[in-house]
Amino acid sequence: MKSINDVARFAGVGVGTVSRVINKNPSVKPDTRKKVLSAIEQLQYVPNEVARNFKLMTSNMVALLLPTIRHPFFSELAYYIEDELDLNDYKLILCNSRGKPKKELNYFDILNRNKVAGIIAITYNDIDHKVMKEIPIVSIDRHLKEEISYVTSDNYAGGRIAFNELIKAGARNPAYMGYLTKSKLKSEVELRKRGFIDEAVRQKIPYNCHEILDDEHSDIGFSEFFCSESYKSVDGLFISNDFLAAEYIERAISYKIRVPEDVKVIGYDGIQSNNCFHPYLSTIRQPVEQMARISVQLLIRKIKDKNIEKEIHRLPVEFRKGETT
Amino acid sequence: MKSINDVARFAGVGVGTVSRVINKNPSVKPDTRKKVLSAIEQLQYVPNEVARNFKLMTSNMVALLLPTIRHPFFSELAYYIEDELDLNDYKLILCNSRGKPKKELNYFDILNRNKVAGIIAITYNDIDHKVMKEIPIVSIDRHLKEEISYVTSDNYAGGRIAFNELIKAGARNPAYMGYLTKSKLKSEVELRKRGFIDEAVRQKIPYNCHEILDDEHSDIGFSEFFCSESYKSVDGLFISNDFLAAEYIERAISYKIRVPEDVKVIGYDGIQSNNCFHPYLSTIRQPVEQMARISVQLLIRKIKDKNIEKEIHRLPVEFRKGETT
Repeated sequence: MKSINDVARFAGVGVGTVSRVINKNPSVKPDTRKKVLSAIEQLQYVPNEVARNFKLMTSNMVALLLPTIRHPFFSELAYYIEDELDLNDYKLILCNSRGKPKKELNYFDILNRNKVAGIIAITYNDIDHKVMKEIPIVSIDRHLKEEISYVTSDNYAGGRIAFNELIKAGARNPAYMGYLTKSKLKSEVELRKRGFIDEAVRQKIPYNCHEILDDEHSDIGFSEFFCSESYKSVDGLFISNDFLAAEYIERAISYKIRVPEDVKVIGYDGIQSNNCFHPYLSTIRQPVEQMARISVQLLIRKIKDKNIEKEIHRLPVEFRKGETT
Repeated sequence: MKSINDVARFAGVGVGTVSRVINKNPSVKPDTRKKVLSAIEQLQYVPNEVARNFKLMTSNMVALLLPTIRHPFFSELAYYIEDELDLNDYKLILCNSRGKPKKELNYFDILNRNKVAGIIAITYNDIDHKVMKEIPIVSIDRHLKEEISYVTSDNYAGGRIAFNELIKAGARNPAYMGYLTKSKLKSEVELRKRGFIDEAVRQKIPYNCHEILDDEHSDIGFSEFFCSESYKSVDGLFISNDFLAAEYIERAISYKIRVPEDVKVIGYDGIQSNNCFHPYLSTIRQPVEQMARISVQLLIRKIKDKNIEKEIHRLPVEFRKGETT
């Protein structure tokens, strides 16, 4: 294999000059650059990026920390994040934290040690104290430290849209259903409920809220719901994510509740990529591709300029009508 | 931040010794190792892995090359591959090739340049000439170069099981449906058809095969199928993957074909992780977790010993009954 010395000799320049050309240092004269690039091509020289990283004390790796790549929302997000990183000559390190704080913290240690260029984090845990100032980070959907930039969909507007779509579809007794999380982290998902409630109050329409503890089996939460008198009259449900919506519909069958005839249902996320599986949910669709690309672009700006101000990107959502309203 | 020099001074040893301890070189005496580890802990020294990689000319990164992380089969595979790598102190670089040979080749260049420890590849393209001898590689589901190890599910047995399950469910005129690929790569998917046909021949039961060209829109392939006289009598279908099976069932509705009453359907893969979405397919379930873990273990053995012989792991599949048989 050819070395950087071979390239320098072939081009008639010093090793430092070859290195500057490879690292795109603007101080090299166009003529010299051309000579070096030609030598690299003719000798089929492959620069060793591990050695380059050592020199630059940086790397072209970006870590994506998410709960699990098996969830279709996260895998779609990861797909577009990888695509946008690739367009910008970065590579993606994938970390599934499975929501376990210990694994997540361990990953942060590894990332700090490896000196990745940056981190995109989707986390449900309180990892603020582990986020090193030196590593650029962008959060999706969660607020981490006060100064950390984040990208999210407009969850509050999503809640309002869902309320209005239920009413438009004929619901007179709308309700919200979601998980109640014990985490102290300020969650964007809370805003879905907030938007729903505010819109109900604004329109003076009575509403209900049913919350399922996220650490107990959903059996209990659902039994409470189906057996409670106050929910018997509910004819429209905004459910905080698509999987929970599908689970409600599945369980409703045994209570002889028909969707959408008896109860209209709207989910959140838009995880279904085709309509061959049913119920094809009416849902608030998150702009996943846009969230992914903007997160990457924001991170790259932070990598290039560490002093960039905090930014919050709240992207518009839309209602996608399926079979359940 | 503390440097390796600080650790050496604190422990009263040379920098080389500290380096050997960090790199787990067995030549260091237990007592010395203990002293160094204690110094590392007390000084909270974080070794810089970029620098270590430079020294060792290796890395703890493994690249996973797959068509798209958005497909539930691949995202489940990636989930377990990341988990098994993490258990072994490796990290995962994710590359979506989207089946585009150019992007895939480009990724191979990058991987060669970065000197990753190894590659796990799921590819539909002919990339043999790009696979560098120096980088350990394991292929999933595809045969690459003759000498490359691969892990796959027992597709041939899957085809035979599917045939038998269709007959057991009452089908008298079974048929196979799948994609016909123009790629010259020897595909494991072909074996699903082969197993199905061999079992039909063995039992002297007449069968049909319908193949859809994978580069034309499936509309044409399906129209041909539904309009052909020879397929009117088909009452059992083994379809080569779950998405195609779901698409068949969706299209069958407009031809007033009921599944499973008129036609029993068995898919392949087992992509559905819950039974809240319908049809919940009867399918041949691939042992995804086992495929992932064995691929990683095999790759790590190859990383540690480059001269290891070619291995083929063909893992057992099983029938999972759903609503479509």
